[in-house]
Amino acid sequence: MRIAVIPGDGIGKEVTEAAMLILENLDLPFEYVWLEAGDEAEKKYGKPLPDETLEEVKRCKAVLFGAAGETAADVIVKLRQELETYANVRPAKSFEGVKSIHKNVDMVIVRENTECLYKGIEFEVDGVAEAVRIISRKASERIVRFAFELAKREKRKRVTALHKANVMRKTCGLFKRVFYEVAREYERIEANDYYIDAACMYIAMDPWRFDVIVTTNMFGDIVSDLAAGIVGGLGLAPSANIGDEYAIFEPVHGAAFDIAGKGIANPTAMILTASMMLRHLGFEEEAKKVEKAVEKVLAEGKTTPDLGGNLKTMEMAEEILKAI
Amino acid sequence: MRIAVIPGDGIGKEVTEAAMLILENLDLPFEYVWLEAGDEAEKKYGKPLPDETLEEVKRCKAVLFGAAGETAADVIVKLRQELETYANVRPAKSFEGVKSIHKNVDMVIVRENTECLYKGIEFEVDGVAEAVRIISRKASERIVRFAFELAKREKRKRVTALHKANVMRKTCGLFKRVFYEVAREYERIEANDYYIDAACMYIAMDPWRFDVIVTTNMFGDIVSDLAAGIVGGLGLAPSANIGDEYAIFEPVHGAAFDIAGKGIANPTAMILTASMMLRHLGFEEEAKKVEKAVEKVLAEGKTTPDLGGNLKTMEMAEEILKAI
Ligand SMILES: CC(C)[C@H](C(=O)O)[C@@H](O)C(=O)O
Ligand SMILES: CC(C)[C@H](C(=O)O)[C@@H](O)C(=O)O
Repeated sequence: MRIAVIPGDGIGKEVTEAAMLILENLDLPFEYVWLEAGDEAEKKYGKPLPDETLEEVKRCKAVLFGAAGETAADVIVKLRQELETYANVRPAKSFEGVKSIHKNVDMVIVRENTECLYKGIEFEVDGVAEAVRIISRKASERIVRFAFELAKREKRKRVTALHKANVMRKTCGLFKRVFYEVAREYERIEANDYYIDAACMYIAMDPWRFDVIVTTNMFGDIVSDLAAGIVGGLGLAPSANIGDEYAIFEPVHGAAFDIAGKGIANPTAMILTASMMLRHLGFEEEAKKVEKAVEKVLAEGKTTPDLGGNLKTMEMAEEILKAI
Repeated sequence: MRIAVIPGDGIGKEVTEAAMLILENLDLPFEYVWLEAGDEAEKKYGKPLPDETLEEVKRCKAVLFGAAGETAADVIVKLRQELETYANVRPAKSFEGVKSIHKNVDMVIVRENTECLYKGIEFEVDGVAEAVRIISRKASERIVRFAFELAKREKRKRVTALHKANVMRKTCGLFKRVFYEVAREYERIEANDYYIDAACMYIAMDPWRFDVIVTTNMFGDIVSDLAAGIVGGLGLAPSANIGDEYAIFEPVHGAAFDIAGKGIANPTAMILTASMMLRHLGFEEEAKKVEKAVEKVLAEGKTTPDLGGNLKTMEMAEEILKAI
């Protein structure tokens, strides 16, 4: 099974090395294809997402992606759209032993990944710039169904749609309407909805009211960082971009140039991202093993400086490996 | 001086009554013009913002607005645009005696109030809905300058722009460019910027890095609810919509039908809103008096059920009145 590995820029490289230490020590039938993308790739090849990378990626079953710097949007948004990975799945879960604003949070954000303001349709004329937000019935139905199927599979009780249908009556209105249409097919799962502004307040104040969240692209971008924030920050937040054919796995964090090269980045987000990849590819047992090991290490208070610990990136990875 | 008072729907009525108790007990040269808008107005007149209300409002110096229900967008967004109140000012400040996620927070969000996705330009064709996000140089310059002037007046140290210029290069790009252009005129105030997603995470995890925030309409909507959330919730969050000619003062909260009619709504947001109105109209001393009284009452632990107290709406207002 061919797996594309794209470390990218900044701490992307460091956390990829850490995740690879774990993967290479599990008995997996993977063939790793190392590829370039990001700021450095742009310097070398004139393009942040070189054609060769894009071609190679399409011959792989999954992509493990570290982070890109200034060119992040050109790389990751393009990859998501090219590979039609329409569902961006971002769990926000608290861990024992980690200082965080709230405890016992366990939600999953399902973010539509192909349209909304991310289509990149923009104009500027005479000092007035316009961006077009596209919301289609097709993509909305697909992402809402994905969210309910995820809820069913993970035995979750509720799916909540976030929107701003009082202001965007047509675009958010369509999304909300489709949400309740699809919800009717899942009688045993509760369906409700919030305005995006109120939802952000509640994610901060009372995150336990959320279980699975489904929302459009830009709102999903915002709530996933916020939700990561209340459970301890980006050092712990993994994500998966799932399509019918391809899948891309990347931590929610970026290249973090301020701490890059020091070997102190928290590899946990990337290791949990690798575990999401394992589960997606059918290696449930291995995925669980990695998660349990991460939980154990964090519960013992072993961690990197971002969470108050003193482990270096690779030391943290080694602790997790030992715990497997 | 003519002041339009629009209680509106739900708890809007209750908190307006509470704020009026305070205002009527201060020695102010105001003539109050009571007007209707909202769900009930729609039922009575067929329009949530009756023509008469709009005409009368334009003969007043300021509008004190409670809340509207289902029709909120038709009322408040329309009012903001009709009256060209281009700056939505939303302080988020922690109070002693109030349980909140964070302490010692003191930021002001300055939200552009006339354009962005709030223009209401939307279409739907064959299952694809589109919304147009408008960002103009003119409105961006105006709001950024407003934010820096506010920072100067309130002796604040930093203005932070929030945007998503890596994805919306033209619209957010324009906003960001204009931000730094204007910033150059204010040498003694620090200027920086964040991506909206990262900013939401930091508002939750580390709000002290923000002082004045300036952002476009939809992002401003989101971060103002979020910022209210980390300092104790919507029960305490006031706001002002400021234009060159008119001004509208409204709490950040809505009609809250779930608790309406019970007399338990927290009137603090509305009373602080009235105090913002007093300051805007030149009654600085009275504005301070009201704020100090609110601080004192909250510090004594006297409050409504939303913050764990047992005072009713009017009891809370009376406590504040006594403390003045
Ligand atoms: C880098 C950026 C384009 C990206 C996004 O907005 O999707 C990032 O914030 C994320 O959430 O993965
Ligand atoms: C009611 C709604 C239209 C309004 C807005 O989005 O501006 C509200 O959320 C607010 O923040 O005042």
